[in-house]
Parts: sequence; structure tokens; C-alpha cells
Amino acid sequence: MNPYFAYQTLFDEKLNDFLLSIDKNPASLYQPMRYIFSLGGKRIRPLLVYIANDLFNGKTENATPIALAVEIFHNFSLIHDDIMDKAPLRRGKTTIHEKWNNNVAILSGDALLVTAYQQFEKVKTEKIISLLSIFNKTAAEVCEGQQLDMDFEKRKTISIDEYVYMITLKTAVLLGAALKMGAVIANANEKDADALYHFGKNIGIAFQIQDDLLDVFGSAEKFGKQVGGDIICNKKTWLLIRAMQDASPSDKAEMKKWIEQKEFSAKDKVEAFKNIYEKLKIKEKAEMEMKRYFENAKNDLLMVNADSIKKKTLLVFSEYLMKREN
Amino acid sequence: MNPYFAYQTLFDEKLNDFLLSIDKNPASLYQPMRYIFSLGGKRIRPLLVYIANDLFNGKTENATPIALAVEIFHNFSLIHDDIMDKAPLRRGKTTIHEKWNNNVAILSGDALLVTAYQQFEKVKTEKIISLLSIFNKTAAEVCEGQQLDMDFEKRKTISIDEYVYMITLKTAVLLGAALKMGAVIANANEKDADALYHFGKNIGIAFQIQDDLLDVFGSAEKFGKQVGGDIICNKKTWLLIRAMQDASPSDKAEMKKWIEQKEFSAKDKVEAFKNIYEKLKIKEKAEMEMKRYFENAKNDLLMVNADSIKKKTLLVFSEYLMKREN
Repeated sequence: MNPYFAYQTLFDEKLNDFLLSIDKNPASLYQPMRYIFSLGGKRIRPLLVYIANDLFNGKTENATPIALAVEIFHNFSLIHDDIMDKAPLRRGKTTIHEKWNNNVAILSGDALLVTAYQQFEKVKTEKIISLLSIFNKTAAEVCEGQQLDMDFEKRKTISIDEYVYMITLKTAVLLGAALKMGAVIANANEKDADALYHFGKNIGIAFQIQDDLLDVFGSAEKFGKQVGGDIICNKKTWLLIRAMQDASPSDKAEMKKWIEQKEFSAKDKVEAFKNIYEKLKIKEKAEMEMKRYFENAKNDLLMVNADSIKKKTLLVFSEYLMKREN
Repeated sequence: MNPYFAYQTLFDEKLNDFLLSIDKNPASLYQPMRYIFSLGGKRIRPLLVYIANDLFNGKTENATPIALAVEIFHNFSLIHDDIMDKAPLRRGKTTIHEKWNNNVAILSGDALLVTAYQQFEKVKTEKIISLLSIFNKTAAEVCEGQQLDMDFEKRKTISIDEYVYMITLKTAVLLGAALKMGAVIANANEKDADALYHFGKNIGIAFQIQDDLLDVFGSAEKFGKQVGGDIICNKKTWLLIRAMQDASPSDKAEMKKWIEQKEFSAKDKVEAFKNIYEKLKIKEKAEMEMKRYFENAKNDLLMVNADSIKKKTLLVFSEYLMKREN
């Protein structure tokens, strides 16, 4: 059972209030903004805001605006990323630019980003500058990460370090920022707030490597998307980058052949990569890497001065998320 | 001579500092963000922030972050509007989505919006909530205005009231907000700040009607774009809406014929509309309407408790802008 289910219930209520507040005209702008939330999601980021706030004994109600801001920002980034990636589906449902069109997706994304900033109006005045500056820095980094991701698509080779840098910006810093902002709301000192930020960032990197793993080794039903989707579209994931690095000349040549082929059997391509990944123990290596980032996160959490039971709960919850199969 | 040239010089410096601060990596993200400012612009909005701040004897340095935020926001909206309008040119130069591509334009616009919000980190704490809430409300309204503009394209008829409502949101409220925020920074009371907001909004509506007029009756060299561009692409401007309203059945039929025609001589089409506009005295009617909004603005300014010389300067400057030919 999720030890934080009460926060999740609370957040669902608050999110619902927010969605009611944007049930207005022009409907052609606000309807897509509500639609993206109807697709669901695990709402991990707002949960992290509440958890960090509680670690430092903050009042729950103070954390809600930031929990909302973080989840709204995340959904804004999904809308715009889906346009850029030309993704037809998000969580098995039609994306906004597909259901409406690109213009609607651009503009409803923009308006959603503005509503994320509107949450800051409800924040206590003495905290607003520090919260806004964490949020702004993170938002800019997420844009940088998305840009690097697009730049990497056009490049032939990417190193593991470059890849980790990109996913850190694109996805991990927002987890760190959610925790740090929760800590700031509850008056944590800077050292503790920063340690928690690094905890979240390291967990975030581990999550992304797990996402890459699930694409290839997850079960189709549980994962909810096509197994091997990343392989089929030549996505430069941790697995592919590491395999290219470790492969023998002949395995490397085989991967390149598949990558360059315009027409192929998807099943055969996934199979071929899976065989090479198995031979090179890529799954085990990725799991070791995840473990390494998880250990880093553990050490960061050790540095946080807070109730040990609360810290343990957060750690076990993070471990549980890391074992998720979707 | 522009009585505010010293503010303009100051703002150019501050804008330059800002541009240097975003001269960073990934260049593929930050270069387009700097490019949009290199296209120029009259920087009216930041000027309004400084002017309002001075009306209430505020310190100039306090107004700079908001002057920057407003101009950055305006440029963000130009980048995304140009994608949505598929505009190849902006101020005679290639637009970002044309020079790079749509994805670059979406993402560099997003990142630019974030940097607008970064300016608020430099604002005095006791003012930040009111400034942020004016800015957020306005930003949401600008998105609503752009959405209405796109919705109107698909509709057969639009009333003058609907058109004025759309341009109010799309362009006028940002002028009002620039003035109101300048007033708030300088500790103006709510009544004065609101009166100044309405002044800016009314001036903004007059400016937009003037823009519509210049498209048809401006001189090509001074205006810097094709005369009659709005006519050629059937844009529902104040002129077209009013002409459709006032036209005889036969003139209405002629306009409809031109609008529905897929292949036509641009010169002949512009000529035909110009003839109908002249017959219906559309230019005079538009000028009267501009004058009406300018009178409203004057009355708003009367309500503002501030130095009468400073108010007079602002009024004459607004009149001068209204007589611009580009």
C-alpha cells in the first residue's frame, strides 16, 4: 500500500478544484487544458512536495499551491513534448495535437504554464522568491533537456555522460525541485533542502534508466505500450548507448544495419537488439547503474536532518516506485 | 522627439544585459531566444512600465525587472503566434519557425516565457504577489485572445463587439497591465493603478484599429509590409467587419465573391475592397472609432491623481503613437 495515499487523495481533490476553476471560455482553449489531466498519471511530483513539507513538519495546506504548480508544469511539458515528438498517444489516449491540432496544443500548453505560475500567488510572501527561483531554474532546465534530447536525435553518437546529463535536465531536476520546494515551504534550512534536491535528482535518473529498461524488458500488458518501441524508432536510450559502447565490431555492425534499415520487421528488429543486449548483459549493467544512483540518493537522504521514520518511509516508497512495472 | 528617449536608452541597455545572460548552452535553444529581439520593435510596453512608475515618483531601477518581463513576454507571444499563423516574416525578417523549425520555435518560446517570470525574482518582496497576479491574469488573457482570433477565422460572421473583445484580450490588456504594474511598483493606490490600466487598454484598442487601417491605407515603404495583406488573406479586421455590416446587398455580394475566390489578382482584390471601403466611408468610421477609444483613454487619465505635466506628456506621446505610419 502507498503510505502516502492520504496525500494522494488530498491532491486529487485539489487538482479537481483547479480543473473546475479552468472550466471556462473560450472552451477551445480550456478544454484541452483539462483533457491532459483526464489522461491520468501517478502524480508523483506533487506527492514529493507534500512528503518533503511533512519531513520538516510543515503545514499540509501550505504545500498545496506548489504541489499543483509542479503537476501543472509537468503536464504543460507533456503537451508540448508530444507535439515535438509527433506522439499520437499519451497513456494510451489521443494526444492533444492529434485530437485537436498543433495550434491548440501550443496555445493550451502556454496557458497551462501560466496557470502553474498562478499557483504562486497563493504562496506565503516570505517564501515566494525562493520558491519562484527554484521553479524558474528548473523550468528552464527542463526546456534545455528537451532541446538536448532533440539535438541528440540528429547526432550519430552520444556518450553515457551526455545521456545522463540530458535526462537529468529533462526529467530528474523536476523531482529534485519538487522535494526542495516542499522543504522550503516547511522552513527547512538550505543544507537540508539541497540534500533533498540531490536525493530527488538521483532517484529521477534511476527512474529514467528504469523507463528505458521497461521499454525492452517490461511486459506489454503491464507497461501499457508496445514492447521495444524505443528500439523500433532508434531512440538513443541508456541501453542502446551502452550496448554500442560495449559491443564487438560485428554486433556493432549488426545494430547499425538495423538502425539504418528503412523497411524491416519490427518483431525481428526488437528480437535482434534483445539478443545483443542479453549477450552484453545490458540489463544487468543498467540495473547496476540504477542501483548506483539509488545508493547516491540514499547517501543524500542520510545528510537530511529529519525524523528517521519519515526518511525510511520515503526511501522504501522510492524503492517501491523503482520496482514498478509500468 | 520622443520625450521618453532616456528611458528607451536605459531599457536598451537592460535588455542587452538580459540578452548576454541568455548567451549560453544549448545554443540551439538560446540562440533563437536572442534572435527574436534582434528583429527590433518599438519597445512600447517596457516604456509604459517606466512612465507609470515615474507618474507616481517611483525609483526607476525598481521598474526594470517588470519592464523586461513585459517585453520578454511580448516577444514570447510573437514567436508562438507566428508558428500558429504560419507567418514567414516578422518585421521583414525570417520568423524563428522558418529559420529553424516549429519545434525550435515552440521550445525557445517556452523557455523565453520562463525567463519573463525569472524577472520577478528581482522584484521587491512586498510587491511581488500583486505584480505576479496582474501579469498572470494578463498572460492568460493574451492566450484567450489568440485562441479567439483563431476561432474567428473559422466563423462566417463576427460582430464589431466580438472583434473588440478579441483585440482587447490579444493586445490591449498587455498595454494596460504594463502601466498598472509600473504604478504598483511606485506604490500608487488601487484606484489610480486601475484608471491607468483602463487608459492603456483603451489606447491599445485604438492602436489595433489603427493597425487595421494602416494595412489598407498605409504607405508601403513606411509600413514595411505589403499594403492590403489583410484583405488578400481575408483577415476579419475592424474594417472588413464594419464594411460587411454597412454594405448594400450588392457590395456585400462582391466582397463575398472575392473572399471565396481561390485564384485572383491580389492587386485587383485590394482595389475592389478599397473602392467599397471608400464608398462606405470605412476609413472615416474607423478613425472615429479610434477617436472614441482615445477619448475614453483621456477620461481614464483624468481620474489618475498624478502630476498634470507628466500626464499631459503621456497623453501627447500616445497621440503621437496613434499618428504613426508604421
